[in-house]
Amino acid sequence: MECIEEVRCFDGYQRRYRHHSQVLGCDMTFSIFLPPEHDQTPKPVLWWLSGLTCTDQNFVQKAGAQRRAAELGLVIVCPDTSPRGVDVPGEDESYDLGTGAGFYLNATQAPWASHYRMYDYVTRELPELVRQQFNVNDREAISGHSMGGHGALVCALREPGRYASVSAFSPVANPVNCPWGEKAFQAYLGDDRQAWAEYDTCELIKRDDARQPLLVEQGEADQFLESQLNIDQLERVCQEQNHPLTLNRREGYDHSYFFIATYINVHLDYHAQHLNA
Amino acid sequence: MECIEEVRCFDGYQRRYRHHSQVLGCDMTFSIFLPPEHDQTPKPVLWWLSGLTCTDQNFVQKAGAQRRAAELGLVIVCPDTSPRGVDVPGEDESYDLGTGAGFYLNATQAPWASHYRMYDYVTRELPELVRQQFNVNDREAISGHSMGGHGALVCALREPGRYASVSAFSPVANPVNCPWGEKAFQAYLGDDRQAWAEYDTCELIKRDDARQPLLVEQGEADQFLESQLNIDQLERVCQEQNHPLTLNRREGYDHSYFFIATYINVHLDYHAQHLNA
Repeated sequence: MECIEEVRCFDGYQRRYRHHSQVLGCDMTFSIFLPPEHDQTPKPVLWWLSGLTCTDQNFVQKAGAQRRAAELGLVIVCPDTSPRGVDVPGEDESYDLGTGAGFYLNATQAPWASHYRMYDYVTRELPELVRQQFNVNDREAISGHSMGGHGALVCALREPGRYASVSAFSPVANPVNCPWGEKAFQAYLGDDRQAWAEYDTCELIKRDDARQPLLVEQGEADQFLESQLNIDQLERVCQEQNHPLTLNRREGYDHSYFFIATYINVHLDYHAQHLNA
Repeated sequence: MECIEEVRCFDGYQRRYRHHSQVLGCDMTFSIFLPPEHDQTPKPVLWWLSGLTCTDQNFVQKAGAQRRAAELGLVIVCPDTSPRGVDVPGEDESYDLGTGAGFYLNATQAPWASHYRMYDYVTRELPELVRQQFNVNDREAISGHSMGGHGALVCALREPGRYASVSAFSPVANPVNCPWGEKAFQAYLGDDRQAWAEYDTCELIKRDDARQPLLVEQGEADQFLESQLNIDQLERVCQEQNHPLTLNRREGYDHSYFFIATYINVHLDYHAQHLNA
């Protein structure tokens, strides 16, 4: 693992690392915020999963999360959104499939299956690396935006008890029923819709005995709200299943990082509360 | 004037406008943050001048200033850093001259003089437009980064009594004595070093009877500190001239927007205090 960038930031450090991922079969870059005194006391980790077309950098540069994370003593790890440079045919043809669009699942279909295994990367390989290399404790929370909001919710629902808390901004909440999800799941997982359900928040809620509470932030002027996110369906399923959901609908806010920046402290405070409980 | 982008942000609005600049002889884009209730009570304006290669967008996306600006009720206007698309020969050949490098001065030399008049643009034309089009009061403050820190200090020193307060991050404090400044001033202003002094903070301080107090933030790990910024010289001149300077040297911080983000609230609070005094 090689540190390729280090910047002082709110008396902590914002760093980027490059490492070889065995799971993905390529070199990967991730960003990590280390709060003040991270070298003295082990800190909890908040995972941030980004959306389509993003890298490890978008959240770092645009969300303005470091100020509060420094105050709260949170490590924030931002993985990239897909394998990079693995030369899978077609991976660079569209913004919503392949590069920048890993959808945080383990692909089972050719030609994707040998590299596109982001679920194992963000829940297994990268956490293991972070535990080895940084002074973190065993408390984790997870959040993300859009495709990454989908990723965060799915990771938490599939791994009951693992994350102290989970939240999402503008998540793709029911990917099996929207164009982004149908296209990606078809390519990565094939025709079997049973397999798709394993990575669909609404489907997973139907069998989540752990009742992991969900915090979801949604802009009412989000340009993808109607076509891709299915937040109404998420709300309906949670009601039907009696699944704890705090859904904050914010009038006038869109899908951008300005929305995330506006409400990120609400989520950081929420996660810190659970991580330190 | 045309609004080309509007995003809800901290219960205010982040907007971009395109307008025709008579001073610069081209269409220009600027960004403006309008805090909550900007339509009800006239608000003061903080001008932010950006550095080399920047547009109106860098500060908006990376400084994380909107949260506190919303709380303080500050309008923040971010102009672009040079004329755009005016087809001056050589303007796109290097990052430190021409496009993205207007240095906030009025050029007197061919081929620059007909368009490169950023001083008049940021102190005359754009303020007039902002006063006409937005609900602002007559209180102004000014700040900026690097080349824009130079710009902010020079504007304030050349216009005594105009700005309630002035501050700068990592300013090019003595451009007549550094490679960036010498190259740009030679091109824009010609051989006459007397003309250069009109846009040099250290030179202007020597004859500033108004003793406008300066707040300067400087990272000690700034990669341009030794070669371009001349902060030691600024400190020396202020001491010699008994000019009020608050210089915050911050150990470990570099020239990036992470440094700005870390300390922007110190400057916003400072300006709000003076703007509302």
